[in-house]
Amino acid sequence: MTNTGDFHILGTDGQARCAELTTAHGTIRTPVFMPVGTVGCVKALSPDDLTALKAQIILGNTYHLYILPGDELVARRGGLHTFSGWDGPILTDSGGFQVFSLQGLRKISEDGVEFRSHRDGSKHFFSPEKVVSIQRNLGSDIMMVLDECVPYGADKEYTAQSLGLTTRWAARCRAAYPQGSGNQLLFGIVQGGFFQDLRSESARQICDLPFDGYAIGGLSVGESKPLMLDIMRHTAPLLPADKPRYLMGVGTPMDILDGIEAGIDMFDCVLPTRNARNGTLYTSLGKVNIKRAEYKEDDRPLDPNCDCYACTRFSRAYLRHLYTARELLAYRLNTIHNLHYFLTLTHGAAQAILQGRFATYKAEVQAVHAHAE
Amino acid sequence: MTNTGDFHILGTDGQARCAELTTAHGTIRTPVFMPVGTVGCVKALSPDDLTALKAQIILGNTYHLYILPGDELVARRGGLHTFSGWDGPILTDSGGFQVFSLQGLRKISEDGVEFRSHRDGSKHFFSPEKVVSIQRNLGSDIMMVLDECVPYGADKEYTAQSLGLTTRWAARCRAAYPQGSGNQLLFGIVQGGFFQDLRSESARQICDLPFDGYAIGGLSVGESKPLMLDIMRHTAPLLPADKPRYLMGVGTPMDILDGIEAGIDMFDCVLPTRNARNGTLYTSLGKVNIKRAEYKEDDRPLDPNCDCYACTRFSRAYLRHLYTARELLAYRLNTIHNLHYFLTLTHGAAQAILQGRFATYKAEVQAVHAHAE
Repeated sequence: MTNTGDFHILGTDGQARCAELTTAHGTIRTPVFMPVGTVGCVKALSPDDLTALKAQIILGNTYHLYILPGDELVARRGGLHTFSGWDGPILTDSGGFQVFSLQGLRKISEDGVEFRSHRDGSKHFFSPEKVVSIQRNLGSDIMMVLDECVPYGADKEYTAQSLGLTTRWAARCRAAYPQGSGNQLLFGIVQGGFFQDLRSESARQICDLPFDGYAIGGLSVGESKPLMLDIMRHTAPLLPADKPRYLMGVGTPMDILDGIEAGIDMFDCVLPTRNARNGTLYTSLGKVNIKRAEYKEDDRPLDPNCDCYACTRFSRAYLRHLYTARELLAYRLNTIHNLHYFLTLTHGAAQAILQGRFATYKAEVQAVHAHAE
Repeated sequence: MTNTGDFHILGTDGQARCAELTTAHGTIRTPVFMPVGTVGCVKALSPDDLTALKAQIILGNTYHLYILPGDELVARRGGLHTFSGWDGPILTDSGGFQVFSLQGLRKISEDGVEFRSHRDGSKHFFSPEKVVSIQRNLGSDIMMVLDECVPYGADKEYTAQSLGLTTRWAARCRAAYPQGSGNQLLFGIVQGGFFQDLRSESARQICDLPFDGYAIGGLSVGESKPLMLDIMRHTAPLLPADKPRYLMGVGTPMDILDGIEAGIDMFDCVLPTRNARNGTLYTSLGKVNIKRAEYKEDDRPLDPNCDCYACTRFSRAYLRHLYTARELLAYRLNTIHNLHYFLTLTHGAAQAILQGRFATYKAEVQAVHAHAE
C-alpha cells in the first residue's frame, strides 16, 4: 500500500538511482522524462498518442494555462486531467520561469511579481499563494513553488538577495498548502545562479522546508555546457537522497544522462517537441535533419533501431516529403519519434541502473551523440 | 470472382443506387465520399486515422504530386500507396482543375496546357498523354482524363469549342492507356458548362468512349446552387447506368444527397477537411463554429450522436480551447470529426437505398441542414 508522495528507491548505480514516486494519478518510475504539454496538450499529440508512447507523466505550464484558458475555467471542468483527457500524472511548473522571461513586462517585489500577458498586454500578479491556488485549480499531481529565475549574467550580490526571496516565497507556498493537506505534491526549487556557494546556501534553505521533492532551477538559461554541468553536479548531491530530484528544463540526451549520473530523477525539456517541429530528429545513429535533400529518395525508416509509429510505418523519403510540404502530419510523426527517443533513453537508463551497467549505457549513447550535439 | 473495374449494382431506390466497384486495392461500396489527400496525405491525418474512419478511397491531386515530390520520385518509391502508407484505393484527378485555376499562368492549345508552378514559377506542360503517364507513375487505382474546366461565365461558343477539345483529349488519354492494359481504371469527364444542350452533347461524346466510369466536371465553380443542381440533374441520367458516376468537387452534405438522388455514386470535396481547419464542424444538430465563446465552458461532446474519436474523447470546451490556442491537435480532431460526418452520411445513404427509404433519409438530414448550409 503506497501513499501519494511515497518515494522508494529500487536500485542505485553510483549516484544514479532508479526509484518509484507515487502520485494521485499513478506511480512513476524514475529516471523519467516529462514531455512538455504547454496548454494542456503536448503539441501535435493526443493523450492516446502519449499513452502509446508510454509517457509516464507530462508537464503543464502554469503561466500559459492561467492566461489561456484560465485556471478557474479548468477547475470548473474538473481539473486539467478531465479537461485534457490525459489521466496520468501531471506536473505543473509555477509560472515563474515564463514570467521572468517576459523581459521588460514584469516587476518583482517581496510580495510577488507583476507582469503583462504576452497575448493582450493585460496586467497580472503572481504571488506565492496565487501560483499555489492556480495549480490547485489545475489539479496537477506535482506543483512547483514560485521562484525567481535569475537571468544568466546576474552578479553575486543580486543572486544572493534573490535566493533569499526564493526561499521566502517557497515557505509561503508551503504555508499556503501545508504538507498532507491534499493529494497534490509540492516541490521546492533551489536557485543560486552560477555561484557554487550560493547554490549550497539555497539548497540548505530550501531543503530545510518540508517538500515532497526538490528541484534545481535556473540552469540552461544561456550558460556554457561545462558551467551548467558544474553547477548541476555541485547541487544534485545537496538535495535529500530520500526525495525525488528534478532538474528543470534540461536538456539534450547527454545532459539528461549526465543528470542521471549525478543522481537526478526527473527531467523536462522542450527540445524533443520543439526540434520535432523544426525537423531535427534524434536517432540511435545521431541527429537527423529531415529537411535535407539526401533523404529525398531514402526508403529506409528514420531510425532502423526505433519501434515508434513513425519509424515502423513510414520512410525517410515520406517524412521528408511531409515536412517539405508543411503537412500537419509531419509535426505529429516527428514529435512521436523524438519523444519516443527521450522516453526510451530514460527508460533504458532505469534498466541499466537496476542492472548495474549505467556507465556502459551512458558511454554507448555518448558514442552516438558526442559529435551530434 | 471480381475483376478490376467490375461494377455491380446492389440495389436502387428511385434513381439512387448502391453498388460495388472493384479496384486493384479493394472494393468500394457506393455512394462513397472520397477525402481529399492533396499531396499523398489527408491534411492532419495518418493513413491509420483514415482506416479508423472507415474511409474507403481517398483522392490525390495529380498537379500537386507532380510538383511535389514529383511523380517519378513517387514511382521510384513503388507508387503512392507504398510511399504514403495508405493501402486502400486511391483516385487521382488529372491535374486539369488545378492547372486551369492558375489564372494568368497557363496557355491552352490543342496539344495540351502550358502552365507555371505555383511554387517556383517554373514552366511545365500537361498533355493528355502526360497526365496519364503521371497517374501511371503515381499508381492510382482510378485515373482521370485531362479536361478543360471551363470557367464560370464562359459564353456558349467558347464552352462548345472547349467540350470538343475535352473529348479529343479524353480520346487521347484512352489511347495512351487502352482499356485492359493494366489494373488502373480510367474515367472520362463530361463538361459543357452551364448549357444543358452542351452537357448533353459532351455526355454523348464522352460516353461514346470506353471508360471505366464517367464523371461530371466543371460544377461548383462559382455558379448558384440551383444552377449547379439543374446541370447535375440534367447530366447524371445521361451517363451509362452500368458504370460508376462521379460528381467532381461537390459539395455540401445536401449537395451530396441531391447527387445520390440523381444517381451519382462517387463524391469528393475539400469542404469537410478545409472547414475542419477553419473550425467549422458538421454535426447531427447542424453546423458548429467551435471558435464561439458559447462553447467555452460546454462539457458536452461536440455531437452527442457521433461516435468519432473527437466526440467520444473530448468536450466542446476542450476542442474550443485547442482551436483558440492554435494547437495542432485541433486540426486533427476537427478533421477526424468532419470526415466522420461525411463518411457516415454516404454510408447511411447506401443503407437507406438498400432498404428503400432514401427519400426519408434525405429528408431527415435536410431537416438539420436546410438552415445551416
